[in-house]
Amino acid sequence: MTHSQSVLAGDRLALARLLTQVENNAPDGRIALTELFPHTGKAHLIGVTGAPGTGKSSLVNQLALHYRKTQNKRVAIIAVDPSSPFTGGAVLGDRVRMRDLAGDPAVFIRSMATRGSLGGLAQSTAAMSQVFDAAGFDLVIIETVGAGQSEVDVARLAHTTLVVEAPGLGDDIQAIKAGILEIADILVINKADRPGVENTEKALKSMLDLAHPAARVFQHHGQAMPTIAPVQDSSSAPMWIPPIQRTVATEGRGIAELAESIARHAAHLTHSGDWALRERARLEVELDALIRETLVNQFMEDISQSQYDAALEKIIQRNLSPWDAVKLLMNGRSK
Amino acid sequence: MTHSQSVLAGDRLALARLLTQVENNAPDGRIALTELFPHTGKAHLIGVTGAPGTGKSSLVNQLALHYRKTQNKRVAIIAVDPSSPFTGGAVLGDRVRMRDLAGDPAVFIRSMATRGSLGGLAQSTAAMSQVFDAAGFDLVIIETVGAGQSEVDVARLAHTTLVVEAPGLGDDIQAIKAGILEIADILVINKADRPGVENTEKALKSMLDLAHPAARVFQHHGQAMPTIAPVQDSSSAPMWIPPIQRTVATEGRGIAELAESIARHAAHLTHSGDWALRERARLEVELDALIRETLVNQFMEDISQSQYDAALEKIIQRNLSPWDAVKLLMNGRSK
Repeated sequence: MTHSQSVLAGDRLALARLLTQVENNAPDGRIALTELFPHTGKAHLIGVTGAPGTGKSSLVNQLALHYRKTQNKRVAIIAVDPSSPFTGGAVLGDRVRMRDLAGDPAVFIRSMATRGSLGGLAQSTAAMSQVFDAAGFDLVIIETVGAGQSEVDVARLAHTTLVVEAPGLGDDIQAIKAGILEIADILVINKADRPGVENTEKALKSMLDLAHPAARVFQHHGQAMPTIAPVQDSSSAPMWIPPIQRTVATEGRGIAELAESIARHAAHLTHSGDWALRERARLEVELDALIRETLVNQFMEDISQSQYDAALEKIIQRNLSPWDAVKLLMNGRSK
Repeated sequence: MTHSQSVLAGDRLALARLLTQVENNAPDGRIALTELFPHTGKAHLIGVTGAPGTGKSSLVNQLALHYRKTQNKRVAIIAVDPSSPFTGGAVLGDRVRMRDLAGDPAVFIRSMATRGSLGGLAQSTAAMSQVFDAAGFDLVIIETVGAGQSEVDVARLAHTTLVVEAPGLGDDIQAIKAGILEIADILVINKADRPGVENTEKALKSMLDLAHPAARVFQHHGQAMPTIAPVQDSSSAPMWIPPIQRTVATEGRGIAELAESIARHAAHLTHSGDWALRERARLEVELDALIRETLVNQFMEDISQSQYDAALEKIIQRNLSPWDAVKLLMNGRSK
């Protein structure tokens, strides 16, 4: 049995091994990914993002439990963890989860440290999602911290993106919300038993109102949205307005309602044709990243290390601008 | 006079126009950048990053004022703002700054919204820093929000990176700190008049201790560090241990001491040779990004849109893996 066949057959050890190869961008991993690719395209990818302190991990944990208990779905969790491996941040987070989800063969949790290279994180996450998808997981939950560009890129991989907030998280959190609203399909106010929850909801609502003129063009099929009513856009077709869901993840409150919201969003995507559009966008990003990587690798084979070093040295001495250096290196290619 | 000559001559309007061209990656901007490049390499680039709510903007504001009043240095501020343009977050932040720094011709403040493309943010920031550097600004302060990958990449541009914390910012902030410690040259506890400041400092200290075994190899020249004593590494040469500085930016407290710390770090970088190493690393990243961009542009000219679309369609239908599609497209290049 090949490695990819073992993964398709449900071998957890083979799965874990492949995830590591994929994260390290190993050649073996790429071969297996190519073999697995025809089996992808079925999973619902759910992104969960938000500022530190919002309780994202507990929320993801509870969502996974909910899907296991009520719908018997297979759930994979990719936790994109900004902490460095040696501080053990990732391990600790996993242990907390493990207590509730341990021993369930239909759950797989994977932590990923951020990679050094630009684009590496989004690329690895995309590839790992494909592995889980092919391996038959119905839901792949991708959890990221913060509102950085790479978190946004990771969130773009998802079919449904949850943006998690919590009451009372400091004064310039508004700026974060503004940027992240654009990627939110569902807004979650976690820790909703805390004081200030009304203010948080009011702030989110007014930001949604503000965002509306420039809002996304996704059509939705006429269902009443929780909390806020759908608004008509200029083409007079109803759109998806991100609902605001309150949860208290540590007590499991609001989780069933949130899962319903997620299901409603998936149905909306399917009926409106946006599921296919997002798939296309996602695969295009992946194709472009691979083209870029292949081109750079070829280029680096074509020029010698000493050519490259000489150009860099001239740049450092300010005898050559980086743009002129690129021209020089392109002309010096052996092929 | 060419555009770049006007910038060198101190024309603020020409500078503003060039910054816009550079941010938009316009061809004119690139020509001017090439002309300006020989004039770069003098400015001290200072990165300031931290979670929302830490008061980074006030801190940067106060630092700029300090440099103006006590050292008569020319200061540029690049505020990398994650909020979307239409919410006006950036404008508001600028107005607050403007009150204190308005009308000073030796200060230039520029806000930048995050760009859509991966790498775009770090690349634009690097290019804008070069413009300010060539235009004769002594200090370029690059302020970023959060701990995302692109914030880390932006911070890597800097010679000196300040990581700003504040007491009492939620429970899983620890995870952020762990990741960001690796890029910190100086740790700032702003809002140090708030309750919990002792705990924040204790937490930072113990994380520094934890981080130490794998710590950076920068040498330092034997000065006593504030707050924490320098520790000897295995090669028994003293290293730079990030000092912890307390500030209350809104009242200007601790700013002079922080500026001293920054100056000490610059001296350390120069004496140890790390300044040159960081310059080299920075220019190498820039060269690589330009190579990548040029290769992709050439490739996209070489293949037809219909070739690309056909390959993407096959991927979407799961008839072709992304990796096989890249091979197909590479073989179909017209050159």
